[in-house]
Amino acid sequence: MITSIGYAATQARAPLLPFNFERRDPGEYDVVLEALFCGVCHSDLHAVNNDWGSTRYPLVPGHEIVGKVVEVGSAVTRFKIGDHAGIGCLVDSCRECAPCHEGDEHFCECGATGTYGGFERGTRIPTYGGYSNNYVVAERFALTIPQSLDLAAAAPLLCAGITTYSPLRHWRVGPGQRVGIVGLGGLGHMGLKIAKALGAVVVLFSTSESKREDGLRLGADEVVISSDPAQMKAQGNRFDFILDTVSAEHDINAYLRLLKRDSTMCLVGLPEKPTPFNARSVVLGRKSLAGSFIGGLRETQEMLDFCAEHGIVSDIEMIDIQQINEAYARLEKADVKYRFVIDLASLKS
Amino acid sequence: MITSIGYAATQARAPLLPFNFERRDPGEYDVVLEALFCGVCHSDLHAVNNDWGSTRYPLVPGHEIVGKVVEVGSAVTRFKIGDHAGIGCLVDSCRECAPCHEGDEHFCECGATGTYGGFERGTRIPTYGGYSNNYVVAERFALTIPQSLDLAAAAPLLCAGITTYSPLRHWRVGPGQRVGIVGLGGLGHMGLKIAKALGAVVVLFSTSESKREDGLRLGADEVVISSDPAQMKAQGNRFDFILDTVSAEHDINAYLRLLKRDSTMCLVGLPEKPTPFNARSVVLGRKSLAGSFIGGLRETQEMLDFCAEHGIVSDIEMIDIQQINEAYARLEKADVKYRFVIDLASLKS
Repeated sequence: MITSIGYAATQARAPLLPFNFERRDPGEYDVVLEALFCGVCHSDLHAVNNDWGSTRYPLVPGHEIVGKVVEVGSAVTRFKIGDHAGIGCLVDSCRECAPCHEGDEHFCECGATGTYGGFERGTRIPTYGGYSNNYVVAERFALTIPQSLDLAAAAPLLCAGITTYSPLRHWRVGPGQRVGIVGLGGLGHMGLKIAKALGAVVVLFSTSESKREDGLRLGADEVVISSDPAQMKAQGNRFDFILDTVSAEHDINAYLRLLKRDSTMCLVGLPEKPTPFNARSVVLGRKSLAGSFIGGLRETQEMLDFCAEHGIVSDIEMIDIQQINEAYARLEKADVKYRFVIDLASLKS
Repeated sequence: MITSIGYAATQARAPLLPFNFERRDPGEYDVVLEALFCGVCHSDLHAVNNDWGSTRYPLVPGHEIVGKVVEVGSAVTRFKIGDHAGIGCLVDSCRECAPCHEGDEHFCECGATGTYGGFERGTRIPTYGGYSNNYVVAERFALTIPQSLDLAAAAPLLCAGITTYSPLRHWRVGPGQRVGIVGLGGLGHMGLKIAKALGAVVVLFSTSESKREDGLRLGADEVVISSDPAQMKAQGNRFDFILDTVSAEHDINAYLRLLKRDSTMCLVGLPEKPTPFNARSVVLGRKSLAGSFIGGLRETQEMLDFCAEHGIVSDIEMIDIQQINEAYARLEKADVKYRFVIDLASLKS
């Protein structure tokens, strides 16, 4: 086994503290990363707090990992020592079902293996996330980080990036389209940049006037304050696609009204409670309310290459691992522009 | 003006009573129908009761009209005197917007003209529906009834038929697919027959064990009792498409769970109140919750021709116009298999 050090929660809502643990020995198809940076996703906080009721402790969060390859198995072909590699939300899957064969490992019918909080496939060895100094992962589940990308700012692409890129591509967003992005947070600010790079006219919806300036700076063609009925009404039936990144409670019917006939709104946030839905919102205009969830490995690599080509990374605030609990407190108040990234060099201090 | 006799409601929840009125004189592009049969749609009852708050009285309901052409304008090309023709839910539209040009007159951006409860385009002459002895309609909004179809049983195709045919075609239901139909009423029984004729394996979902025999007789390959959690669980992730025809309150999330990855459930019913919706139901599996609303003229004709080719009509219970109030009382209790159709010859008695 490989010895590791990270930060873990030992029970729900407990502060994260230093934690020593072991990872599996690498096999012939594995690469070992020295972890350099790890993004802080809101899911990490939900997992620490056991909001979904399925957390096993101790929990080392982190699924937006960028690192340097320090060891490669004998059968590894895509990586060599010294390369920069990334790990996203999943580190394994059954590899045999239809979704796995079609590049949708995240929809693996047997259940994909989470980067943290799961078990190494076929064992009872827990998977621990990227708030740590290293990771052992099958080459198939590692991503190549293009050289032109800033390593720290690329880390959030591995979850926030693919979560927004995947639906924008799946529903074929492109030039000539008017696309809405609902919410300007970790996901929303990536969605905005990617939709713009795909050539669409992009409208940001935010509840807060204070986001207007940032929205325009990040590439929005227009910013609509969603709490203003007059502004919302003026957008009626004008959108080819809307990406809704909001996890807080909000009125989805108000956005469905903004779609053109035959158009789709896609949710990527997961509000904790059910939200009221009016059938009329989709019946009139033959509209669709869809969902999307991260992305498969092939598409995640495609997204990284797309981001390199268009010079897209996340807007980040770098922290040391010792600041993680303070960062969580700020994250709960949505007080971050727009993603915390942990400099894992701080683990050594 | 042309004199007409029909049955009208003069205020909300009032019984329908005989009513004399006038229709506009036919123009060069118009046909005049002697109305022979008219289906009784649940929307008629909603309109009579002013459930949507927009009813103008007196109201003559009826938008599933089959009749005989008794007069044609000089510019009419598709009909001659003696032909059988049908009228569905709309009798005009702006004819100039994108939806109108694309055969989606029902989504006319200026608002289509309803067969009853609206006004003749550009006038204040009310449109009165098919619970009457005649109708004056532009040729463009009249349908050809194929000779092989029983006239009375074909009437409900003009609303219930197109409402279910349109989404089944739009989402490309066909051989090799497993398709769910939720609810066995006026819409559901048509959806079941059409989905079967399109070549799909069809599963009927009903709350009531009493519908099993009828469901199988009407073409279902399987009947699932939706109130039985074990039966529902066994259907998980198995459906390529689900058509939900239920207007009563019900749990849509329970059906979204039955869809395969990347599949769609389409609603054609309009429950009065918003229903709780879990984002998780669509996020996991990249599913879609869509809606559909009747259909355009071109597609309605295509549906009639398809039904003739496959020998599909509605299962009906024929009534005289004098029984309409009793029929409404039964309709409120869903006590009809599966559509009342008024024999308009009874108007003369």
